[in-house]
Amino acid sequence: MSEATSRRPAEHGVREARDLLAARTRSAEVPAPPGWNETLEVLLSHRSVRAYRPDPLPEGTVETLVAAAQSASSSSNLQCWSVVAVEDPARKARLAALSSGQGYIVEAPLFLVWLVDLARLERIAAERGITAEALAYLEALTLATVDCALAAQNAVVAAESLGLGCVYIGAIRNHPIEVAKELALPPNVFALAGLVVGWPDPKVSTAVKPRLPQEAVLFREQYASGPVQRAAVARYDETLRAFQAERSMKVQDWSEQALNRVKDAPGHDGRVRLREALEALGFGLK
Amino acid sequence: MSEATSRRPAEHGVREARDLLAARTRSAEVPAPPGWNETLEVLLSHRSVRAYRPDPLPEGTVETLVAAAQSASSSSNLQCWSVVAVEDPARKARLAALSSGQGYIVEAPLFLVWLVDLARLERIAAERGITAEALAYLEALTLATVDCALAAQNAVVAAESLGLGCVYIGAIRNHPIEVAKELALPPNVFALAGLVVGWPDPKVSTAVKPRLPQEAVLFREQYASGPVQRAAVARYDETLRAFQAERSMKVQDWSEQALNRVKDAPGHDGRVRLREALEALGFGLK
Repeated sequence: MSEATSRRPAEHGVREARDLLAARTRSAEVPAPPGWNETLEVLLSHRSVRAYRPDPLPEGTVETLVAAAQSASSSSNLQCWSVVAVEDPARKARLAALSSGQGYIVEAPLFLVWLVDLARLERIAAERGITAEALAYLEALTLATVDCALAAQNAVVAAESLGLGCVYIGAIRNHPIEVAKELALPPNVFALAGLVVGWPDPKVSTAVKPRLPQEAVLFREQYASGPVQRAAVARYDETLRAFQAERSMKVQDWSEQALNRVKDAPGHDGRVRLREALEALGFGLK
Repeated sequence: MSEATSRRPAEHGVREARDLLAARTRSAEVPAPPGWNETLEVLLSHRSVRAYRPDPLPEGTVETLVAAAQSASSSSNLQCWSVVAVEDPARKARLAALSSGQGYIVEAPLFLVWLVDLARLERIAAERGITAEALAYLEALTLATVDCALAAQNAVVAAESLGLGCVYIGAIRNHPIEVAKELALPPNVFALAGLVVGWPDPKVSTAVKPRLPQEAVLFREQYASGPVQRAAVARYDETLRAFQAERSMKVQDWSEQALNRVKDAPGHDGRVRLREALEALGFGLK
């Protein structure tokens, strides 16, 4: 048993584990974890934070989050991502305006923009007079998107372990070309996701959001569609209604919420034309 | 040792933080972290594990890893991912053969295949006679790829906190259609990444791999290409040569290694034709 698991008296850990698992899964059927430690506590306690104190971050925070991000796996060690740390209030406001005007981007001290970055390898190749053929394929974008997301998630876990709160901003993809201009991105670099980082406002309560029952997302040996998924989704619709009622939120089935989000073509120019935007930014997508 | 002393005296934490940061960045310039905790230790200690003991995982491991995965953020709570847990030796062997025959897939007790999953929402829409227009766009694939990678990375962090080792298998994309058949995936589901999970073989040493200097990946306010990147890459070439020499590995500049990986079109059928494969699997990619 590692020092981590031995740190907490067993009963305390087990109770906490069960409480957090119950909050996330709302199911009595998920077995107890094989061990418990602070890292599992951080992971299972995640909630997106949308209200921040304006207080600055301690020195070294950005570098520590990026060191955590760099510690994530990278396919063939290609490290096809970069990150821009934006702290200038005027730039944060412009990026917020480009991302559906989400106020917490301005409110929080730090806005990290995670970049799919094929430019570094393109430049190294160009300096040697080589064409980096592989980078012109959808595979390269996929590989870099995965690497970038793994890095960003490690930064989130690091931030939350330090008591900071975060929220991802997918809406940074609403206007990819304008965002690229704002951040002076060279060709072959694309802003995949924004991440707000700051001190959660203690006056605004947050809660662990329940997710789909594990039967809907975890399969053994082979995928199971049909009845299993249907029953799990129906159960989740109920779970989420109960959660919304507890939190005095608008009560609506998850199925309905999700359908409202996906029934029409993406509303924003950049998202409905992401393929064209990526091509304009230099990506091959073969 | 009493619990008080095992709670890591400050000096111990600081020394450990500096050691791990130094191993990852090989730079004296990265400032000390604003705090230190077990989660940062887990994150910064990451190394990919490619040799495993065959021992089974304790009960509840898979469910705990998936609960951690489900705790990651999900864009608009759409939860566009699923995971197949493969433990059957014959199926692991077939998947290994489809992924460049990497032996540790068979050796380790668990192989998780992380799936981009637009089928769940497609089905919910179809049951209501609705066409989920948004799912036919590259944006949907991008959103789901990010969600799936965030989930997978949380599972990795959870596993490593429990003393388990992991390695991602991007080569699961070498043969997307054959992998979809093996896992009985419905249309609109795609195996994005494999993840081997098991007990690291203590006889095989692993090391924290140094990454690019932060100047190459972390920018303030705007992206900086050119001289800054060039100098950072040159420094990293040296760092990696030193690391390879320490580990008795083949000594080769990172730039060269990376170029060898990207100078030609992707070698595997599935990767060079990922776009066609995804279209064949039902993805729109508009």
